[in-house]
Amino acid sequence: MPQAPKITSVDALPADEAKWIEFQKISWSDQTGKSRVWEAASRKTRGKSGVDAVAISTVIRHPNRPPSTIIILQYRPPVDAVCVEFPAGLVDEKETPKEASIRELHEETGYRGEVTSLSPTIVSDPGMSTANMQLATVEVQLKEGDQEPEQALDDGEFIERVVVPLEELYERLIQYDKEGKRVDARLWHWAEGLHFAKTML
Amino acid sequence: MPQAPKITSVDALPADEAKWIEFQKISWSDQTGKSRVWEAASRKTRGKSGVDAVAISTVIRHPNRPPSTIIILQYRPPVDAVCVEFPAGLVDEKETPKEASIRELHEETGYRGEVTSLSPTIVSDPGMSTANMQLATVEVQLKEGDQEPEQALDDGEFIERVVVPLEELYERLIQYDKEGKRVDARLWHWAEGLHFAKTML
Repeated sequence: MPQAPKITSVDALPADEAKWIEFQKISWSDQTGKSRVWEAASRKTRGKSGVDAVAISTVIRHPNRPPSTIIILQYRPPVDAVCVEFPAGLVDEKETPKEASIRELHEETGYRGEVTSLSPTIVSDPGMSTANMQLATVEVQLKEGDQEPEQALDDGEFIERVVVPLEELYERLIQYDKEGKRVDARLWHWAEGLHFAKTML
Repeated sequence: MPQAPKITSVDALPADEAKWIEFQKISWSDQTGKSRVWEAASRKTRGKSGVDAVAISTVIRHPNRPPSTIIILQYRPPVDAVCVEFPAGLVDEKETPKEASIRELHEETGYRGEVTSLSPTIVSDPGMSTANMQLATVEVQLKEGDQEPEQALDDGEFIERVVVPLEELYERLIQYDKEGKRVDARLWHWAEGLHFAKTML
């Protein structure tokens, strides 16, 4: 029976116990030749693609519904909140980012589509982290009467998918925030770029 | 004399030496009641606003130039590359995010403007980090003949600002990537949302 996830304790994590992430002490010589140190977090899971993760901006087109995208809601322990994000996931050791995009979109939402573009390798938070990613755009063409597909989640994965008309995305994210959910910065920026194009140009 | 920054070594950072970031071992009880552990990185610098950082999407309006934004280029040791980002920075201990937005925009670009919107608190990479931020939109109205203002950088800060017409932003980011620079994921998403609105809807 699903119940609300709950944090029971937060402790300092000794470096030699960490399995998924690690801390780097980066010694570097700056633009004046001065020796300096920078601290960064890093994922230990990066595979041979060199890309940690992918996210997917989906466009669902349907004969008589407005163009829509899919966002997912899932609890994220680091911020102790249900987060609102694009479908996303880590790239497996031997996968390409494009393959990971198709797989993750299917697992988290049930949908399959065509990857119509793939961003360059972009960096998630380069002031504190080595993490990088690629953003795939996937087009899904539905026909009249197509049923909503089943998600393909692992046991113990609790991910809610929501299909949102693109026209309503920005307001929907504001609404989720008011409900106490936390919107992912990348999804927010995408929605704000879209909103900006419609309202400020 | 500015010279190319260079990494001299990358070592494991023991938790008790870290000054800026820390590792958390989060014990939590999942949706089935099972006890689980999540590893996260966290900034140690969060002040009383509860928000780690701000970024600023600027809109420069001018009587006879196209609407433009400002991006900054700076070397980031965690990814050993010059990164292309919105102006951004940490919120000081006693500052509000809005105040930090005005200050950071001025320091990094020289421009001052009016904050016309401020995003909710959004989360930068919630699968691995507690980091959060707000995105401010700042409007700068220029008059014919206004000079480009001076940046107000600290000694040892090397930040290049670039004013880019919004119509050219997406292609410009692709060009920077081809030159070996690394585009920040949030800036990329904003530009892709804008591009999407113009090309896919």
